[in-house]
Amino acid sequence: MNVLQSQINFIAEMDLLKSVKRKALIKSDGNRYENSAEHSWHICMAASVLQEHIDEPIDLMRVTQMLLIHDVVEIDAGDTFAFAPQADLDKQFELEDKAAKRIFGLLPAHQQQYFYELFLEFERSETVNSKFAKAIDRILPLIQNMQNDGGSWAQHSIKRSQVLARNHGLQDVSMSLWNYVQEQIDIATEKGWLLNA
Amino acid sequence: MNVLQSQINFIAEMDLLKSVKRKALIKSDGNRYENSAEHSWHICMAASVLQEHIDEPIDLMRVTQMLLIHDVVEIDAGDTFAFAPQADLDKQFELEDKAAKRIFGLLPAHQQQYFYELFLEFERSETVNSKFAKAIDRILPLIQNMQNDGGSWAQHSIKRSQVLARNHGLQDVSMSLWNYVQEQIDIATEKGWLLNA
Repeated sequence: MNVLQSQINFIAEMDLLKSVKRKALIKSDGNRYENSAEHSWHICMAASVLQEHIDEPIDLMRVTQMLLIHDVVEIDAGDTFAFAPQADLDKQFELEDKAAKRIFGLLPAHQQQYFYELFLEFERSETVNSKFAKAIDRILPLIQNMQNDGGSWAQHSIKRSQVLARNHGLQDVSMSLWNYVQEQIDIATEKGWLLNA
Repeated sequence: MNVLQSQINFIAEMDLLKSVKRKALIKSDGNRYENSAEHSWHICMAASVLQEHIDEPIDLMRVTQMLLIHDVVEIDAGDTFAFAPQADLDKQFELEDKAAKRIFGLLPAHQQQYFYELFLEFERSETVNSKFAKAIDRILPLIQNMQNDGGSWAQHSIKRSQVLARNHGLQDVSMSLWNYVQEQIDIATEKGWLLNA
């Protein structure tokens, strides 16, 4: 198969991410579940808008590409709720790694490696770029839940300590975003959207 | 209001793009209508994957940011079908310009201007970056319709000459993509998905 046809097939395959459902709710659209494709767009927008709050220099192009592809593996592996038991989260990584190999494997050889490495960089979260990308992926559900009477937190009886632990990595990239998140968690606890535990 | 709170409000407002419906159909999700947020993600992916076919150097970061924000105006202005009458398309631009001023106006001053200019650059389609961005925005519905038995073309009795005219700008940026599009239009006409006129 020629290079262009492989790329077109990959782009067509991407359509499937639009049917992977997350736990977040879209208030403006009949409170339906958000899908992973529109979520991926939303976090790229958030990264562009919030980049000035990062304490170290980042490569916004690399961050954006990481965020564009970070959920593509869910086409095969599905979405796992952020507050699922640790055993489920560990199993999820195995499934996602297998999915990354199959899905990026649809691309020509020179692109397979590039996108697979981007995916691993995001998952490992060791570089400044991937720490920022991961932080944005975690702060957006908080913004959504605060707009939506607690949203998925309230639905699943999530504790404030769980949300603090999940966003803890923000301290490594942005003190101003970390302060903001702590304030929001206090408000959510007062309102009863998070359990005070 | 402080800078961060304005940015958070803008990010929360972006949620509304997930309820703007386009004419394209998502086969994998019960053949529902695609929304403009997931579409925006999909074209950013397509731009990343297809950039090597562009005949002149481009700035992929600027292209990607243009594609991320190009449909945000639809939050106020709604989506207009690509093959709507010209009078509707002209009226749409006025609505979109007003929408751009309101929506990007939610951001702090230093970001308002940046995003508004990106939006105008995309609409005017005079720079290499915006010509590529526009070409990708037009080629993706073709890829989707070819996967979906003619999709929105077949539903709305679209002519091959309309699709050729709409993708004509591809000649300015990529001969290989233009050749591909012409081949696909031939196939769609043979299959009866496009009217042979």
